Amino acid sequence: MAEIERHLMVVIGGTGDLMRRKLLPAMRRLTAQGQLKDRVVLLAAGRRTKFDDESYREWAKEALEEAGMPIDEDGSGWCQQCLYYRSLGEQTVDDFKRFRTAIEEFEQEHDLPGNRIFYIATPPGAFIETVERLGEVGLNSSPGWTRIVIEKPFGNDLDSARELNDRIHRYFDEEQIYRIDHYLGKETVQNLLTFRFANTLFDSVWNRDRISSVEITVAEDLGIGDRGEFYDSVGALRDMVQNHMTQLLTLTAMEAPAEFEADAIRDEKVKVLRSLAPFDPSQVVYGQYTAGEIDGKPVRAYTEEEGVAQDSHTETFVAMRAYVQNWRWHGVPFVLRTGKRLPEKRSQTVINFRCPSLALFQQRTQATVHANALILTLQPDEGFDLKFEVKEPRDPLRLQTQSLSFRYAEVFPDLPDAYETLLVDIAQGDQTLFVRADEVEESWRLYTPLLKEQLPVYPYEPGTMGPEEADRILIPRGESCPI
Amino acid sequence: MAEIERHLMVVIGGTGDLMRRKLLPAMRRLTAQGQLKDRVVLLAAGRRTKFDDESYREWAKEALEEAGMPIDEDGSGWCQQCLYYRSLGEQTVDDFKRFRTAIEEFEQEHDLPGNRIFYIATPPGAFIETVERLGEVGLNSSPGWTRIVIEKPFGNDLDSARELNDRIHRYFDEEQIYRIDHYLGKETVQNLLTFRFANTLFDSVWNRDRISSVEITVAEDLGIGDRGEFYDSVGALRDMVQNHMTQLLTLTAMEAPAEFEADAIRDEKVKVLRSLAPFDPSQVVYGQYTAGEIDGKPVRAYTEEEGVAQDSHTETFVAMRAYVQNWRWHGVPFVLRTGKRLPEKRSQTVINFRCPSLALFQQRTQATVHANALILTLQPDEGFDLKFEVKEPRDPLRLQTQSLSFRYAEVFPDLPDAYETLLVDIAQGDQTLFVRADEVEESWRLYTPLLKEQLPVYPYEPGTMGPEEADRILIPRGESCPI
Repeated sequence: MAEIERHLMVVIGGTGDLMRRKLLPAMRRLTAQGQLKDRVVLLAAGRRTKFDDESYREWAKEALEEAGMPIDEDGSGWCQQCLYYRSLGEQTVDDFKRFRTAIEEFEQEHDLPGNRIFYIATPPGAFIETVERLGEVGLNSSPGWTRIVIEKPFGNDLDSARELNDRIHRYFDEEQIYRIDHYLGKETVQNLLTFRFANTLFDSVWNRDRISSVEITVAEDLGIGDRGEFYDSVGALRDMVQNHMTQLLTLTAMEAPAEFEADAIRDEKVKVLRSLAPFDPSQVVYGQYTAGEIDGKPVRAYTEEEGVAQDSHTETFVAMRAYVQNWRWHGVPFVLRTGKRLPEKRSQTVINFRCPSLALFQQRTQATVHANALILTLQPDEGFDLKFEVKEPRDPLRLQTQSLSFRYAEVFPDLPDAYETLLVDIAQGDQTLFVRADEVEESWRLYTPLLKEQLPVYPYEPGTMGPEEADRILIPRGESCPI
Repeated sequence: MAEIERHLMVVIGGTGDLMRRKLLPAMRRLTAQGQLKDRVVLLAAGRRTKFDDESYREWAKEALEEAGMPIDEDGSGWCQQCLYYRSLGEQTVDDFKRFRTAIEEFEQEHDLPGNRIFYIATPPGAFIETVERLGEVGLNSSPGWTRIVIEKPFGNDLDSARELNDRIHRYFDEEQIYRIDHYLGKETVQNLLTFRFANTLFDSVWNRDRISSVEITVAEDLGIGDRGEFYDSVGALRDMVQNHMTQLLTLTAMEAPAEFEADAIRDEKVKVLRSLAPFDPSQVVYGQYTAGEIDGKPVRAYTEEEGVAQDSHTETFVAMRAYVQNWRWHGVPFVLRTGKRLPEKRSQTVINFRCPSLALFQQRTQATVHANALILTLQPDEGFDLKFEVKEPRDPLRLQTQSLSFRYAEVFPDLPDAYETLLVDIAQGDQTLFVRADEVEESWRLYTPLLKEQLPVYPYEPGTMGPEEADRILIPRGESCPI
């Protein structure tokens, strides 16, 4: 990979939630002893005019303590070395002009070569104006390279996503744009390509001849928290399925890229999206959580959450079947399932293999056979489990399903957070783990017709796996192979 | 599996080593609380005329204590219930006639229906006379069923094996004959068929397209012990390769049987033997251990062992390549390796998979890829390990070989000894794990030409993996895939 050049990272929205919870801790690790050490100066920018470098550093120090990374332990001077704050005021064009001058002075002062990252960490949907302001004042180019980083949501349907892309592309080339889907930064997700293409054992069976179904689940035990107003305008399909879960689907289904390089990989992901059959509304079930109990404590119904309309029909649960219509996957259902207030926080992809071609063991014996399965877990403990059949000792012949388990944290105790991975990639200029313009549009092209359907939203109790109506969409558990 | 009928088990050679070390402990477990409880009466027979039931039980008690299974703990009356002794004297025909009468009286006394197992546990090579005596006095049939159990060695070349089969078949049908290869009683070996045919994941890759080589190793750290005289007339090829290791080869290579039944399975094993190319002497390397040190203690050279000729050219080490000439395995070397005085006691089959079809990860990165491997271990800890590639966290992209491990004893703490498994199968009349007449002859047909070759025998030091001359036969370790 490329040497990381010295650069300036500007975080716009530098006093926000994302900065506090994710970016600061990640930058702290990467700059203290990690890959960005001595490579980056961090300039936070926000509306707050009261902050100066000193008081911002205080704020950052508290944020890091909250994240369990107190500053004093090692490199107590960290804040002094690389963290600064500039106010963007009301974010007018004039404010941005002043900001540009400030940046140029700042770079001179710190002897930086003009390489810049603009990380737009503003609240949902507000990013596009910031991107345009940057462009209008000429911050879309610099003596070195300039990159912008954009968080989700990226549009809320095909038209809005296209419009956003058009507006960004007016000032920035696609090579400058890093659209974040933080799922792509997780080790399990990155390892999926290694898993598939560096292991003959798995590469050989990764097709419709051997796989009967793929299940992608993102279950959350929490409700929507304080995101009520935003969530109610979005729903689970937009919030989870169109982006994160579709990313997991494309990485699971994609063909081997021509080379292991950003555009070659993203080309293959786009091909999967183009191969997906239009979603059949009869294969989509929505749910919304009711009031109930979790661990003996009462919890509110979705419609009673703050910021949610009392007659809201927004889905907090989706189960759906998707079909990749290509040679590799024809006929294999990809089952996507996500929901709030489910029994536990768990994200996983389950590859269900077909039954052995012959029920050899069932013909004369009492043995039952279960199909192999491979479970790739993103949450709560990144890793994977391989379920296979083993003979029980002694007669009569009986088989038992056992698991081989691999947990990343056991082998690699210092596993990076997704944001650490992504921040390094941005600094290196590696776009592999970022969503390309055509990718995001293809995804919206698929989901937009579904958004226009008025599907029923079935109630489900907190702590359950969603409404019963979804059962027909899901893959039955624990069935043995036919005799 | 069939209900086990009440029967008499006669062990001829009932005061020998096999009885003491293997059969008695196995019978103890099976009759005390196991599958043979109340199903069997055990009658030991031997030359010793001094023994009666009482003194034999004392002998047995000591043997069990030696095996770590003292009688008193549970079922202190075990010996009284099912263990008896009759002398066979000089084993003349008259002795056997008297023995027959004794058996018939014994069965009446114990109200047994006439089902009989004759387990011939006499010293190597002496069994055939016993089998003929049994036949001559009519003990080849009974009011119930009669089965005979035969230990290795079964002949020492094709002619002698054929002659033995002919002599046995004069009195006993093949359905009555249980030729023991105790390797077949081991769980890992039995599980091989489950592994292959009940797991789509492994079934799919079990062929020349995906497997580059198969290595079967039976390494022993000990020398030949007190078997000098016998061993020197036999050598490693006859002692280990022709029987145990060839069994492992056939089970690894065989096609799926028409059904999961003794003859269907043995038919497939015989097919493998018939498909084996004649062994190429240039692909066979012999070794013989010299004097040396193991763990700092001096050990004798093979030729200085008791009972061994001082100018002996008997091999204590064999490495050879075999090729199964069929559609599944054409071109895949099966490497067999065994030896005495190697660094450790270890029996395993290694399935080396091919490299991924494309060096995707090596083109643009510093990553190296290693081929997957599956290691089936019989000794020291039955189980298997799957070696696969996983991505290291963080940049640059690097792969690391990790292992998924399954150990039978962790999941099944009460793993039966091979002899327990085999004794139950004999009592049930299940011949699956026993070597059929044509199987043993096919194996000797393969090895007999090799026995006639005068191959050089290279010296090797104790504690090494054999002579250097064998390296060209073996599969190199740890090589990464070509770019």
